[in-house]
Amino acid sequence: MDRVAIVGASMTQFGQREGWIRELLAEAGQDCLANAEIDGDDLEHLYVSNMASGEFEGQTGIANAVAHDLDALPAYTARIDQTSSSGGAGVYSAWQSVASGASDLTLLIGGEKMTHRSTAEATDVIASLTHPAEYKHGVTLPSFAGLTARRYLHEYDAPRESLAKVAVKNHKNGVDNPHAQFQKEVDLDTVMESPIVADPLRLYDFCPITDGSAALLLCPESVASEYTDDYAVISGIGGATDTHVVHEREDPTVMNGVVDSSAIAYEQAGLSPDDIDVAELHDMFTILEFLQSEGLGFFEQGEGWKAVEEGVTDRDGELPINTSGGLKSKGHPLGASGVAQVYEIYKQLTGTAGPRQVEAETGLACNVGGFGNCVITTIMEAGQ
Amino acid sequence: MDRVAIVGASMTQFGQREGWIRELLAEAGQDCLANAEIDGDDLEHLYVSNMASGEFEGQTGIANAVAHDLDALPAYTARIDQTSSSGGAGVYSAWQSVASGASDLTLLIGGEKMTHRSTAEATDVIASLTHPAEYKHGVTLPSFAGLTARRYLHEYDAPRESLAKVAVKNHKNGVDNPHAQFQKEVDLDTVMESPIVADPLRLYDFCPITDGSAALLLCPESVASEYTDDYAVISGIGGATDTHVVHEREDPTVMNGVVDSSAIAYEQAGLSPDDIDVAELHDMFTILEFLQSEGLGFFEQGEGWKAVEEGVTDRDGELPINTSGGLKSKGHPLGASGVAQVYEIYKQLTGTAGPRQVEAETGLACNVGGFGNCVITTIMEAGQ
Repeated sequence: MDRVAIVGASMTQFGQREGWIRELLAEAGQDCLANAEIDGDDLEHLYVSNMASGEFEGQTGIANAVAHDLDALPAYTARIDQTSSSGGAGVYSAWQSVASGASDLTLLIGGEKMTHRSTAEATDVIASLTHPAEYKHGVTLPSFAGLTARRYLHEYDAPRESLAKVAVKNHKNGVDNPHAQFQKEVDLDTVMESPIVADPLRLYDFCPITDGSAALLLCPESVASEYTDDYAVISGIGGATDTHVVHEREDPTVMNGVVDSSAIAYEQAGLSPDDIDVAELHDMFTILEFLQSEGLGFFEQGEGWKAVEEGVTDRDGELPINTSGGLKSKGHPLGASGVAQVYEIYKQLTGTAGPRQVEAETGLACNVGGFGNCVITTIMEAGQ
Repeated sequence: MDRVAIVGASMTQFGQREGWIRELLAEAGQDCLANAEIDGDDLEHLYVSNMASGEFEGQTGIANAVAHDLDALPAYTARIDQTSSSGGAGVYSAWQSVASGASDLTLLIGGEKMTHRSTAEATDVIASLTHPAEYKHGVTLPSFAGLTARRYLHEYDAPRESLAKVAVKNHKNGVDNPHAQFQKEVDLDTVMESPIVADPLRLYDFCPITDGSAALLLCPESVASEYTDDYAVISGIGGATDTHVVHEREDPTVMNGVVDSSAIAYEQAGLSPDDIDVAELHDMFTILEFLQSEGLGFFEQGEGWKAVEEGVTDRDGELPINTSGGLKSKGHPLGASGVAQVYEIYKQLTGTAGPRQVEAETGLACNVGGFGNCVITTIMEAGQ
């Protein structure tokens, strides 16, 4: 079967942005179309990844609005929502649209506009994805992260500093990403002395509230050369859920959705964890980078923290993780994040990552919804 | 290529329901699984069609919640939103999941919980899908319907009564649908004397505010017999957009999204309008049944009203339309409606529609988002 190729990718500046979601989505979409030198009405399908434009801005129907703004009529459009993994779910939908033969040219745009709301308001919207029993008792995602981090440090004899080193590493990577919200390094002391949010996690263990969008252009590999000389293929993609009620999980330090979704993706790609050269993980909280790097099989259970301590996941390490800066320094506009992860892998595989460039023929993106409630893993390879 | 089969379908009672969206979704989902004698964890993908659980109930992440309720872990889940055509968009996503090879067993559940909000509040949520300029000037979907109806009656010399006869016909059909919100006939005088909402349209030209859900089970046709003896196949499906700003359309009496989406579906199925034996159209407003029946090629432009006058679209007519009662009498829980349309065609094609049964080997469902902003057309045939 013809594989699905990514023949274009773009992302906007992440951070605090003016305007509203519709303009942000159109910005990334226009850039992606311009890069491929095509017009909106060349598109057959157009998907928008977005969690909550209705809740954040009182505006729905945004997929249709963006199709209009990009002159993409009569392209079919829909919005894909899977909370904070809406971006990855959009990648999966866009992949399916091409792999099923429904579309020969699909644009995916993921985005979110959040910073016009207070942190409390934004946290409240995000917390509405949790189980109502958790929600009513004030258990938000940051508090799950704190509980899980405490358990992990205890269970695997990991030093608190190892978590902080995730933030230090990802901020260092973000310096070379012109689209990142924070393009500045932070040192270990700064992280360790930042205010406590959910003990033992501190302010710098958390990603920020962010506006931004990112876009991808997909088509069958057989026609990829019509759009670009350098492309990437999605050679494996899978999604999986874990319990909606987090406390029902047997071991809070194991992300079953990561294990299950990556098993599907590895099998489809015919690859194993050892074959991956570069990865973008969903470091919404520093602890999540450990859990994902273990769930994906990069490191043994309870050993992810050592890899960070030993520099294995540094940009010049054996397996660079979050060369983009990750959600931690790049920012986390919910619907955009999963798309921006794939954007980064695309840049790495096509040799266009500039100062962030690493040597890679194969890459992986892992996008997490909720507290691992749903996970999409995407494996990509450089096109031939 | 293996076609995509529908091997199970269910719907809940439509109307004013207790509980919340999650329970409604689980109810249809459980019924669909039970009918096929399978368990939740047999599912590979699970899609939820829903427009606005966040806006209506302050609850997001519902795809994940329902996967949990159906014991469907670790099935991949996502929510599909395309405003009032979310159901049809979900059918398209579910079809793609099977046609792409990503899933060999997909459950789609569409639903909405609305009646706990006032009509004004519900209308306001729905109006948030329109262009902000329209929205701010108070132009909601019912007012578009009024303007379009007036134009249609003028342009094609159609009597006002012809619109009312759509309501009379669909209410008559709804009497035999035990799931319909209104299982009672209305006569022409009742419609013609009901209060004016958006001149010339009156209360009985509009569908109600409704709670409810519906579900479909999809798999490759090659394994359909594992689940049921009687199944239907989706032989053609297409989606298309029209302008987000309604007044930019050249002719308000032409639904371009209907024309474009059905062209894709007809071509894929290798069928023409003459081949369709039964159809479910999106009669959110009576005028829309005329426009769709013309856009789909059943009748010439401006002739749809005559077909209703002459009984062509009655249950015992040449081309029965809305045997289910349509949105008009069955009700219109936004995310459920497109799924419930396909449910009705499935029942007709598998000979299980009871007192509503018509003779049909081929059926069509047309689901409309916004005021024709996005349309999904699905063509189905009885399985072999």
